[in-house]
Amino acid sequence: METISENACFGGVQGVYSHRSESCDCDMTFGLFLPAEAKDGPVPVLWYLSGLTCTHENAMVKAAAQGWAAEQGIALIFPDTSPRGDDIANDEAFDLGQGAGFYVNATQNPWAPHFQMYDYITKELTDLVFDKFPLDVTRQAITGHSMGGHGALTIAMRETGRFASVSAFSPICNPTDSDWGRRQFTAYLGFEEDEWAEHDASLLMAKHGFDGPILIDTGTKDQFLDLLKPETLAQAAAAKRQEIIFRMQPGYDHSYFFVSTFMEDHITFHAEALYA
Amino acid sequence: METISENACFGGVQGVYSHRSESCDCDMTFGLFLPAEAKDGPVPVLWYLSGLTCTHENAMVKAAAQGWAAEQGIALIFPDTSPRGDDIANDEAFDLGQGAGFYVNATQNPWAPHFQMYDYITKELTDLVFDKFPLDVTRQAITGHSMGGHGALTIAMRETGRFASVSAFSPICNPTDSDWGRRQFTAYLGFEEDEWAEHDASLLMAKHGFDGPILIDTGTKDQFLDLLKPETLAQAAAAKRQEIIFRMQPGYDHSYFFVSTFMEDHITFHAEALYA
Repeated sequence: METISENACFGGVQGVYSHRSESCDCDMTFGLFLPAEAKDGPVPVLWYLSGLTCTHENAMVKAAAQGWAAEQGIALIFPDTSPRGDDIANDEAFDLGQGAGFYVNATQNPWAPHFQMYDYITKELTDLVFDKFPLDVTRQAITGHSMGGHGALTIAMRETGRFASVSAFSPICNPTDSDWGRRQFTAYLGFEEDEWAEHDASLLMAKHGFDGPILIDTGTKDQFLDLLKPETLAQAAAAKRQEIIFRMQPGYDHSYFFVSTFMEDHITFHAEALYA
Repeated sequence: METISENACFGGVQGVYSHRSESCDCDMTFGLFLPAEAKDGPVPVLWYLSGLTCTHENAMVKAAAQGWAAEQGIALIFPDTSPRGDDIANDEAFDLGQGAGFYVNATQNPWAPHFQMYDYITKELTDLVFDKFPLDVTRQAITGHSMGGHGALTIAMRETGRFASVSAFSPICNPTDSDWGRRQFTAYLGFEEDEWAEHDASLLMAKHGFDGPILIDTGTKDQFLDLLKPETLAQAAAAKRQEIIFRMQPGYDHSYFFVSTFMEDHITFHAEALYA
């Protein structure tokens, strides 16, 4: 693991690190914010999964999360959204290939050799950060934005018992029935739609639910509402009698201005679960 | 004036606007955050002047200022740092020309026709924003980062009576004796060094001081300390018996991670002066 940068930030350290990933068979970069409390021992962790086109950096500089994480003594992990490199498959569309891993393990070519983002996040990067940094493996929560909200919700529901809480900002809620999902799942996972169900938050909610609290925020002026389908997840959660706070925020769109506005709420929400 | 974008943000609106500038003889773009209170009438204003290489956008997305401004009911103005355009003079160096206006009115060619940033900020953009938006002209404060800290301090001391308070993050404090200053003032203002004194915060402090409170934060690990010369301003302010809070923040560098860390303090500081 190589240190790219470390900046003092809200009494802690905002670091950027790169490492050779076996899952993705390329170098991967991630951001990690450690609050001051990490000097004295392991701290709880909030994973932040980013959306389409993002690297590890976007949320790290634009989501205004570190101040609230510092106040709660919580670390933040900002993974990249896909493998990257000139020799790695890509697509001209912004929503397929590099910057658009959709948090799945691709089984189809040309994606399968590198696009193993589910394993990368849930296993390889997990092992790495808990090995190298003072993080408390028993206190983890997860959040994300857009495609990263999809990642956070699906990972939280599949990795049973691992996360105390999950939240999302304008998540893709029903990718098996959306143009943000069907095209990508076909490319990465193939035409067998049964294989897709494990990567659809609304379907997972109907089947499993989540053993903990959920917080979802979406803007009523989000320009991608038709692709996100928050109504599908709201319906599934209510039908499942899932513990959830589901909010449609009047006037807000899909941008980081929206994400940063509600970041305090999300980190406070996770802190309550992590310190319970 | 043209609206480039408006996003809901912390209950208010983060807008970006462009307009034809007479001072700079080109189109100029600026960001303006209006808190929710602006719906009911004019609100106080905090000007934020950015540093080298920045446009109106950097601080708008990375300084995490809107949340604190919303809490205090204060508007934020994010001007650009220079005129821009293919037909406008520039230099290969990042610290001269476009993105590096230094908040002066250039008298030398090739800069003089467009680089009139002092007048642009203090007159033209001022007239525009108070004409077009619900802003209270009697309640203004100013801050900035690096070159923008230099701009904030020099403008505040020269525009007597206009600003209730001034603050700065890692400001260039003594440009007439720094490589961040001498080369640019020579280019923009010519070889007559007497002309430079009105654009040097430490010299203005020794001569005039500021009729209000000042807050300065600089990191002890700032990679540009030798160019910023905070010691010069600290000495001048103490000698002048100026009301000032001058802080060297241990471990922090020159980045927006530093700026965002202390943004709450700066906005709280200005709010106290603006609502006094």
